[in-house]
Amino acid sequence: MIYASQYLLTGDGKTCINNGAIYVDQEGIIKAVGTREELTAKYKEETVKDYEDATLLPGLMDMHVHFGYYYSQPDIYNFDDYMIAYYAQEQAKIALSLGITTVRDLSSPHNLLKQLRIAGEKGYVKTPRIIHADAGLCMTGGHGHDDGIPQVDGEWEIRKEIRKQLRDGADWVKLLTSGRSETPEFTQEELNAAVDESHRVGRKCAIHAGLAPSLQMSIDAGFDTIEHGTFLTLEQVKQMVQNKQAWVPTMTAYTVLYEFCQEKIKAGHNKSDRIAAKAIHDMAFFKPAYEAYKNNFKEFYDTGVTICTGSDMVLYEAPPLPINRELELMVEYGITPVQAIETATSNPAKVLGMEKQIGTLTVGLEADFIAVKGNVAQDIKALNNLLEVFIKGEKVS
Amino acid sequence: MIYASQYLLTGDGKTCINNGAIYVDQEGIIKAVGTREELTAKYKEETVKDYEDATLLPGLMDMHVHFGYYYSQPDIYNFDDYMIAYYAQEQAKIALSLGITTVRDLSSPHNLLKQLRIAGEKGYVKTPRIIHADAGLCMTGGHGHDDGIPQVDGEWEIRKEIRKQLRDGADWVKLLTSGRSETPEFTQEELNAAVDESHRVGRKCAIHAGLAPSLQMSIDAGFDTIEHGTFLTLEQVKQMVQNKQAWVPTMTAYTVLYEFCQEKIKAGHNKSDRIAAKAIHDMAFFKPAYEAYKNNFKEFYDTGVTICTGSDMVLYEAPPLPINRELELMVEYGITPVQAIETATSNPAKVLGMEKQIGTLTVGLEADFIAVKGNVAQDIKALNNLLEVFIKGEKVS
Amino acid sequence: MIYASQYLLTGDGKTCINNGAIYVDQEGIIKAVGTREELTAKYKEETVKDYEDATLLPGLMDMHVHFGYYYSQPDIYNFDDYMIAYYAQEQAKIALSLGITTVRDLSSPHNLLKQLRIAGEKGYVKTPRIIHADAGLCMTGGHGHDDGIPQVDGEWEIRKEIRKQLRDGADWVKLLTSGRSETPEFTQEELNAAVDESHRVGRKCAIHAGLAPSLQMSIDAGFDTIEHGTFLTLEQVKQMVQNKQAWVPTMTAYTVLYEFCQEKIKAGHNKSDRIAAKAIHDMAFFKPAYEAYKNNFKEFYDTGVTICTGSDMVLYEAPPLPINRELELMVEYGITPVQAIETATSNPAKVLGMEKQIGTLTVGLEADFIAVKGNVAQDIKALNNLLEVFIKGEKVS
Amino acid sequence: MIYASQYLLTGDGKTCINNGAIYVDQEGIIKAVGTREELTAKYKEETVKDYEDATLLPGLMDMHVHFGYYYSQPDIYNFDDYMIAYYAQEQAKIALSLGITTVRDLSSPHNLLKQLRIAGEKGYVKTPRIIHADAGLCMTGGHGHDDGIPQVDGEWEIRKEIRKQLRDGADWVKLLTSGRSETPEFTQEELNAAVDESHRVGRKCAIHAGLAPSLQMSIDAGFDTIEHGTFLTLEQVKQMVQNKQAWVPTMTAYTVLYEFCQEKIKAGHNKSDRIAAKAIHDMAFFKPAYEAYKNNFKEFYDTGVTICTGSDMVLYEAPPLPINRELELMVEYGITPVQAIETATSNPAKVLGMEKQIGTLTVGLEADFIAVKGNVAQDIKALNNLLEVFIKGEKVS
Repeated sequence: MIYASQYLLTGDGKTCINNGAIYVDQEGIIKAVGTREELTAKYKEETVKDYEDATLLPGLMDMHVHFGYYYSQPDIYNFDDYMIAYYAQEQAKIALSLGITTVRDLSSPHNLLKQLRIAGEKGYVKTPRIIHADAGLCMTGGHGHDDGIPQVDGEWEIRKEIRKQLRDGADWVKLLTSGRSETPEFTQEELNAAVDESHRVGRKCAIHAGLAPSLQMSIDAGFDTIEHGTFLTLEQVKQMVQNKQAWVPTMTAYTVLYEFCQEKIKAGHNKSDRIAAKAIHDMAFFKPAYEAYKNNFKEFYDTGVTICTGSDMVLYEAPPLPINRELELMVEYGITPVQAIETATSNPAKVLGMEKQIGTLTVGLEADFIAVKGNVAQDIKALNNLLEVFIKGEKVS
Repeated sequence: MIYASQYLLTGDGKTCINNGAIYVDQEGIIKAVGTREELTAKYKEETVKDYEDATLLPGLMDMHVHFGYYYSQPDIYNFDDYMIAYYAQEQAKIALSLGITTVRDLSSPHNLLKQLRIAGEKGYVKTPRIIHADAGLCMTGGHGHDDGIPQVDGEWEIRKEIRKQLRDGADWVKLLTSGRSETPEFTQEELNAAVDESHRVGRKCAIHAGLAPSLQMSIDAGFDTIEHGTFLTLEQVKQMVQNKQAWVPTMTAYTVLYEFCQEKIKAGHNKSDRIAAKAIHDMAFFKPAYEAYKNNFKEFYDTGVTICTGSDMVLYEAPPLPINRELELMVEYGITPVQAIETATSNPAKVLGMEKQIGTLTVGLEADFIAVKGNVAQDIKALNNLLEVFIKGEKVS
Repeated sequence: MIYASQYLLTGDGKTCINNGAIYVDQEGIIKAVGTREELTAKYKEETVKDYEDATLLPGLMDMHVHFGYYYSQPDIYNFDDYMIAYYAQEQAKIALSLGITTVRDLSSPHNLLKQLRIAGEKGYVKTPRIIHADAGLCMTGGHGHDDGIPQVDGEWEIRKEIRKQLRDGADWVKLLTSGRSETPEFTQEELNAAVDESHRVGRKCAIHAGLAPSLQMSIDAGFDTIEHGTFLTLEQVKQMVQNKQAWVPTMTAYTVLYEFCQEKIKAGHNKSDRIAAKAIHDMAFFKPAYEAYKNNFKEFYDTGVTICTGSDMVLYEAPPLPINRELELMVEYGITPVQAIETATSNPAKVLGMEKQIGTLTVGLEADFIAVKGNVAQDIKALNNLLEVFIKGEKVS
Repeated sequence: MIYASQYLLTGDGKTCINNGAIYVDQEGIIKAVGTREELTAKYKEETVKDYEDATLLPGLMDMHVHFGYYYSQPDIYNFDDYMIAYYAQEQAKIALSLGITTVRDLSSPHNLLKQLRIAGEKGYVKTPRIIHADAGLCMTGGHGHDDGIPQVDGEWEIRKEIRKQLRDGADWVKLLTSGRSETPEFTQEELNAAVDESHRVGRKCAIHAGLAPSLQMSIDAGFDTIEHGTFLTLEQVKQMVQNKQAWVPTMTAYTVLYEFCQEKIKAGHNKSDRIAAKAIHDMAFFKPAYEAYKNNFKEFYDTGVTICTGSDMVLYEAPPLPINRELELMVEYGITPVQAIETATSNPAKVLGMEKQIGTLTVGLEADFIAVKGNVAQDIKALNNLLEVFIKGEKVS
């Protein structure tokens, strides 16, 4: 089958093909990429699906999701394992409906993502490709402890929990080491142990860190991806470039929470309004966070640090998996749509070590791709007009 | 919206309308039933959906399912609560794909069906209407005890377990009291207690019983539906008519197992072949069971006993929810397709006490209906050519 | 010490003394009751405390409280046993501040009231006299099961739980057997067993029952007090008179809930407002309940049935322990203030078997009494102007 | 409101104002401190509360209490969590009745003080300001292990338990590392880990240590307060001055126990009297302890070490929270009343890091103060004649 459209982005951060096309074989492998003219000439017998005024691009990859995060649901009393399973599957369905063909889940209830992936393989449910870090790890009382993250302390508890999660099917390791204050959580010794335990068995590890001193400690420990990195300094980003550490800023999560607080404060008359009071309190964190991203993103991007999209949205009634919004913010903060797309396609693939399998529209790769109405290279918002979604050549949404 | 087709069965066991139609309002209520001509004349503005050479009939009701029966799956080690949830949802999806719009689940893991129903209401998953008996009850060591059915003994353990299941959301009560032998399971006193505990709080109860003396004990105790009733006698069926007890024969389950054994025996050379030996052993039960249904069905039907379809299929690799096969068997054994359809539509609705809500195409009821290619009244196998499925006026498959 | 005031009610339902007085000795025993003139003449040396334009009457007795009912608190997550203890003590303090000198607690967390009473005896906290039924009993899934009431089924589980609660310090036994529907809960056999187990060891038992058939079953079983009895018939009340069964109507609880629903419905625009929808649903119960009390109270009173006040208020933000409101309702529904006071003083004392100790201002009894501004015999609302509260001659509020 | 008296101590260890006064605003903040004359001149409209022949001084701060220490109660079998809650609240009430407006609780059952504080905020109970170290930590078998202190060993168990207690609301960290013998308990490595874990997240830590070598180890580890320090040497105290470590001698606890033993020995005829024998045994510790304090206190004081009062009284029937006695002992051992008061007011505030909020009568601070009859600067025993107690301008006793 040949898929064609007026615009085609290969996902490498630069290549755009006008009147582009890909030829996908029966096994779902991309056998050719070029202009529509070239491909229809070469594969004369093949059916052509033409999306016309549309862009073909690789399926999006969301590097920071929590499919099992049900803690903000108002009817939390309904959530036993059965309901958590149904909830996670709903998230998977939403991902596909947004053009997300691969997710990295960075902590959900133990075994949930493993089982969701198997249920997908069995055909019970439809899911994007799933890479996951099982339940993640935090220190006793650390960030996430009240959302069910296992609480471990000391080098050996950390190593044991990592071994356990890898034994139970985790692909990645994820730690959390800062909340909304500059109080550090894990010690340097603990962070080093986590990285060592992961790397020595060939796994990569991610860390939730947003403020000093935890950020510097995480960079020094050698984590592969810094999640959030809200108050990173230019100096630190340069170290990350040196160390080949990727950054998953998840700017939308902070922006949405900033806007959410703004709205609540506007609605509340004063501090004696309980909800407004909480918003004012939260704002002390979210306003500077929002501004840090806004002010620093382009400068950090220009260092050459590898940036990946991650939506990390778990707030009840917030837009689910707002990866499009994340890309829009990047463009708003100064990079081109084509550069932005790279952070959601080939960059994640490289960070996941899957660049030989997915992430770009390249001959020999599996055909994960989406078609959206309009010209994404001109207008990143075109992503909101999704037409079709394919995983390994199979239509999934 | 008006739905029309060349044939229409109201589900009452007799009425067929040529060039029939129903008019369904915005709330999913049937506002008119008649000929296409009448309805289009009366509701001139309404859009007409015409299925042409097809039959419109009420959505099918399967009165004996086990959505959470994963015990025969070969990878049973994969089934924690997450996987059971995904498995049950797959069953729900299959039900819709077969035109089954209501099921009565007669035992699945505790709370599973309650949660599946809530997940459906939340929009996480699509399900038929669910009526359920939670986990069911058997005596210690009784039929089903190795499939996770709670084992209870004595009047008060039974009453307590019934209260617990009703508290936790069960709609019906289900007991099991016989296996493949004439050894009775529950005592008369226990069966009586179960019926009393259910009826005194306005609930109905079903019993799995297939052989003497359990069958007679169950009839005497006053159960509302006799499940299987494999070796019922004519005398007993007449008592059931007297007592207004319905029969859910689930003939297909026995027929499929009979055929399965036949095939294994044919494949095995002799008794020393382990699989053939098991099949020969099982055959001692399934052959007479198969024959009892074949020989007695029509005679029992003619007593006027209320019969309901139930598929009860839990064997791995067996056709799932073979309600069509059940109806075909009924026709093969001597009743008309129109009579057979009644056992899957208005009879179940009456037994469930839902006849004012669903079960027939009648003005004022909720529009649960299906369209199948061909004329069901002529050929029951037409059910295999399903076109569309609606629940309360909404297309679900 | 002599306590005097312009009005004095002895609590017997009829006696009012103008310019009355009581003389209370050092041990807190009432040594004389009469006019101020008589007592000051007789006990010339004694100090006289004169409340002037006020009424002296026995301390109030609230026969239906739940000091440990924290389930409607919005910060329920804060309630471990420590917080429950503090909450219960707050209730005790409130009781004293309202002139309630004795309470019968009809179910709170296991051991809570026992410990509160001991803490009172040790001087850690101040409490009214406490009579309690420990945690109460309901059937599995019965009314109250989601508020932590032990769920028991069958004669012997009931007897065992009663023995356990009596062993652990309960003074009374309390069962619950109906919710908001006519579905009966306990069977007659279970109710009979509860009464037998209580009476054979000299204890009395109360039952929460509001609707048919549970009400008749409870009367037949011989419970000593019928709690709520919302939809009692005149015939049933006459049986209660015959059987010497007392009635604790707790009308205020229903009235407050009725008004609460009214207000929510008024505030909500229509059924699609979630809170209004719930109120409309609840109203289907509370409106007829409210009306039943309003219409029947006087007629039932006139049969001579023993009526006791009970406030039973557990709704968050409802007025706590509204015993004054209960008495006002009685007067509004047709009895005199002096008669109403009897239901909160000598009647409870008799039902509790404590009439030789408390409940009236009678020579030889312990001096539990209150002083309120104004003339209660003329205006029941005078109770709202509480001046002082005494238990056994000691000022407690 | 202006509060005036003939004497006023600001709590800074030196300032006394004759005919002093403070002006406290509506929010409970001290807006002026000076002579009565000055303040009444400046705030002409303000009401003046004049205590006359009395001293105004800051509310007392007891830096070493155990509100939940019920282990010496004779009816210990009555102490479940409910009773412990009531007991703790009784201690809080006693504190207020003694003029103690802030306590630092240095180990009580897990979560008790957290809940007591919340119950205070909710208005259920009245409490002084509470700073607490949750349950504290000791080594397996260490001092306090038989009073329910969590027993932890090794750097990482200690860090984990500290993280757990901080997660659960502890303000401080408290370890115990010596009993009545020179056997050390925690190793130096463990003590260092505790201090590091506390300090790296910005918390302070206290240590129970009374004898060599534990005392030296604790000083070297860097604990913020040394509790008891019974057999400190002058050399060690000088190190503490250097390290800015405070000393909480709790002399009264040892003195009362010394006197208690003396009395028992006097009452017993000889060693064969069991109680006398125990007293003789205990005396071997309490006599030198008592003498050490008596002999060294003034010399240590003169080094400039920061001393704070702590009562640490948990013996049944001992005077509760004898902070006044502690101050009397200090005066008896050689310092002035004004200097003594500093150890119960501004010193604790500084050690707690609350000196900008409470601890002295200073403009801008919250008005925690007491009024006592007589002139405290002349006679420390005047503290026993407490008139009134205020927290943040609100009268609490």
